[in-house]
Amino acid sequence: MPSSLTVADLNPAVLNVQYAVRGELAIKAEDLRNQLELGQQLPFKRVINSNIGNPQQKGLDQPPITFWRQVAALMEYPPLLELVKDKWPSDVLARAKELQEEIGSVGAYTHSKGIPLIRKHVAKFIAERDGYPSDPEDIFLTGGASAGVSLLLNVLIHPHETGILIPIPQYPLYTATLAQFNGVPLPYHLSEPDGWSTSISEIESAVTKAQKEGIKPRALVIINPGNPTGSLLDLPTMEAIVTLCEKHNLVLLADEVYQFNLHQPNTHPFHSFKKAVRKLNSPIQLISFHSISKGVAGECGRRGGYFECTNISEDVRAILYKMVSVGLCPPVSGQIGVDCMIRPPKEGEPSYPQYKQETDVTHAALAHRTKLMAARLNGLPGVSCVDSPGALYLHPKIELPVAAVKAAEQLGKQPDTLYALELLEETGICVVPGSGFGQKDGEYHYRLTCLCPGVEDYVGALESFHRKFLEKYGGL
Amino acid sequence: MPSSLTVADLNPAVLNVQYAVRGELAIKAEDLRNQLELGQQLPFKRVINSNIGNPQQKGLDQPPITFWRQVAALMEYPPLLELVKDKWPSDVLARAKELQEEIGSVGAYTHSKGIPLIRKHVAKFIAERDGYPSDPEDIFLTGGASAGVSLLLNVLIHPHETGILIPIPQYPLYTATLAQFNGVPLPYHLSEPDGWSTSISEIESAVTKAQKEGIKPRALVIINPGNPTGSLLDLPTMEAIVTLCEKHNLVLLADEVYQFNLHQPNTHPFHSFKKAVRKLNSPIQLISFHSISKGVAGECGRRGGYFECTNISEDVRAILYKMVSVGLCPPVSGQIGVDCMIRPPKEGEPSYPQYKQETDVTHAALAHRTKLMAARLNGLPGVSCVDSPGALYLHPKIELPVAAVKAAEQLGKQPDTLYALELLEETGICVVPGSGFGQKDGEYHYRLTCLCPGVEDYVGALESFHRKFLEKYGGL
Repeated sequence: MPSSLTVADLNPAVLNVQYAVRGELAIKAEDLRNQLELGQQLPFKRVINSNIGNPQQKGLDQPPITFWRQVAALMEYPPLLELVKDKWPSDVLARAKELQEEIGSVGAYTHSKGIPLIRKHVAKFIAERDGYPSDPEDIFLTGGASAGVSLLLNVLIHPHETGILIPIPQYPLYTATLAQFNGVPLPYHLSEPDGWSTSISEIESAVTKAQKEGIKPRALVIINPGNPTGSLLDLPTMEAIVTLCEKHNLVLLADEVYQFNLHQPNTHPFHSFKKAVRKLNSPIQLISFHSISKGVAGECGRRGGYFECTNISEDVRAILYKMVSVGLCPPVSGQIGVDCMIRPPKEGEPSYPQYKQETDVTHAALAHRTKLMAARLNGLPGVSCVDSPGALYLHPKIELPVAAVKAAEQLGKQPDTLYALELLEETGICVVPGSGFGQKDGEYHYRLTCLCPGVEDYVGALESFHRKFLEKYGGL
Repeated sequence: MPSSLTVADLNPAVLNVQYAVRGELAIKAEDLRNQLELGQQLPFKRVINSNIGNPQQKGLDQPPITFWRQVAALMEYPPLLELVKDKWPSDVLARAKELQEEIGSVGAYTHSKGIPLIRKHVAKFIAERDGYPSDPEDIFLTGGASAGVSLLLNVLIHPHETGILIPIPQYPLYTATLAQFNGVPLPYHLSEPDGWSTSISEIESAVTKAQKEGIKPRALVIINPGNPTGSLLDLPTMEAIVTLCEKHNLVLLADEVYQFNLHQPNTHPFHSFKKAVRKLNSPIQLISFHSISKGVAGECGRRGGYFECTNISEDVRAILYKMVSVGLCPPVSGQIGVDCMIRPPKEGEPSYPQYKQETDVTHAALAHRTKLMAARLNGLPGVSCVDSPGALYLHPKIELPVAAVKAAEQLGKQPDTLYALELLEETGICVVPGSGFGQKDGEYHYRLTCLCPGVEDYVGALESFHRKFLEKYGGL
């Protein structure tokens, strides 16, 4: 009998991939949820998946936007029109008609770059957002931003040679995908004392270090608004980043999927890198990613998003097109979502009042929870937490008792993983340990979403767990 | 100013990727369609994309199955229930309710392996199909079969070392993905004179050749029903293939996405490799792929499918789970499609009569067109065509005049590419040259789908083009 396929037989690059957002904690959370469903007694009534920005998950239930879903239902089943034509807003019917005429059936493959009309709409949205033109030929619709990031890293990386500058802490999609494609991560630290700001000198140091080690820095990843940090870049910093990319011939990969999640828009507005590049008339190559999974839509399950190429030559775009064509096309449901995201109902249109009401509620709830949770976490001994102006997360720093650090060592775990596991077992709240995003030696963090229901009870559970944890391990 | 990013800077593996189904011919077809839309005069009224199995595309318009779309519309917008509860069949309402209770919102990320309830249904479908049990834990829902194939090849391949046995001709997803991940293709030829059957000795020769060259054969790809060939394997051949995999310790990758497309089911039924493996009680590792894009649903745009792992250890499955978790989850729209595909309305249920009528028409139309087109093509000078018993394609062999071969050489093109380009320019019919799938030296083929509208006119256009082409190049 032949030997069976073992893990040791697999591609070593794949074995190196780590993705903490759906790692040990998430698997444990699933186990606990199954135990609850089987009627077992646990110290909590439900598991809350604060490890992932998934606004519409069961138990959080951020409601979908009605306009999106009415359009989607008509696209799925066009004869529905007869039943709803006197009942649903006329702009819903008009949007569905326009998209049906372009697309035909949602069951057909589309152009591999995405439906041409929707790419035109994306270009128009970008032009209006930034005040600089955008070309539909530069737009690729994708199955979520992750699919676009994976494509770009795959295309840019020469295995074991190419360095990609990534922020620390970072969304672990980047380290996971670098591991998959044998890219070399070149970490640069964000500055927590300055609200997780991006420091040019940190990036310069990382470039210098890579060059000394014979690694060619090829691209710079910026996540703005930040994940897991919730920070927002100001324009002068962005312009300095563009200048740095020009100096070192770096492709700029701008992950801007949280651009609609702004909790303090007057003091912390969003600026796109596309705008910064055009304002400086810079020749740098830029890829900007956006997604329907975040914002106030939170339509994660559709898998939709896009990226825009700036200053990318036609022949490089042709390679990108070839690669996406192997995967045939992004999900049509996600492409329709992109259209709804970048062409929401406008003031004066019949769907607008409901759209405005629904999205205002979601924006306000996120801003309120973020502020309240940051304040309360900051009141705990050994915890400090930047009050995120954007995205969906807080990323508090936690000092841990020496005994807790030792206990973790004995279990072969990171100390913040121990903290997160005990939090999950005590409260049902699942967060991601800071070690999954990267942090300085001896520092500990965790990331949690601000999507919880009943924020008072939720933050109360975090507080009482933290105090008990300190007590259990002999205090700070 | 720094030098800009050029094609030469990109990952060399990516540059080697070729995917003819959406290659030169498809791009040319798009140009011609744009010209027609702009009102330009061409020798035809419309472009027909026979290059890709996309049943619901505009102009072909294979209608979607009503049951699927009513369920999908209710999933998109649950309040729709109030409007349709007295109008739509009760089994549609019950299915939507059951799925909504399990899933919650279609806008939420699901489990990365797919919705647990749907995986249970898939396992039940497989058990009933084969007469052997199936475990939901062995099922991974995917964004179409392509996503699953890509994952498995990525995981199995040690760059530049691992050989994967692929049929020639093959669906170019395989060579494209092997190029992307630096796997070594180990081609084995199908036997056209025997209806494109699979020969064990051809595979044995390819294994021996690889071993001599220091390449480790790791997996064997079988496409059944065949693409581009439309052939169907009989059980004795399948059992011999399983035994061969056992002998050489090969993982069997069974692409079974056309399992519902059977034109001669009495003489050419489908058997799954799962059944063959279980019947022989074989320990070989098998991954079986299925898709909602083919069959009589043809729901390509949703991006849905699954693979089943047979005899794959839990720790290897954990690696697969880790990798799919980085991409978060397959599109929910595609997952719901999988449920509709493997749990269609049953006899006695209210949706059944319409479902039966719709799918019978599609099955019959495919079988009729396949038979008629094969017969007519076989009547042309220099053309021979296996009458495909399955899938969506014909793959005729064409003898080409010496002058045509020379003309192609002068253009730096494959002779069958020249043929396909002229066919497109004369008739608007876009096919894929056989060189895109692989063929023996000096042989020429093309693949076309049997999805055309108005088959008499369509095949008439193929015939008159072929005769003119022979005339133009001085005959055979």
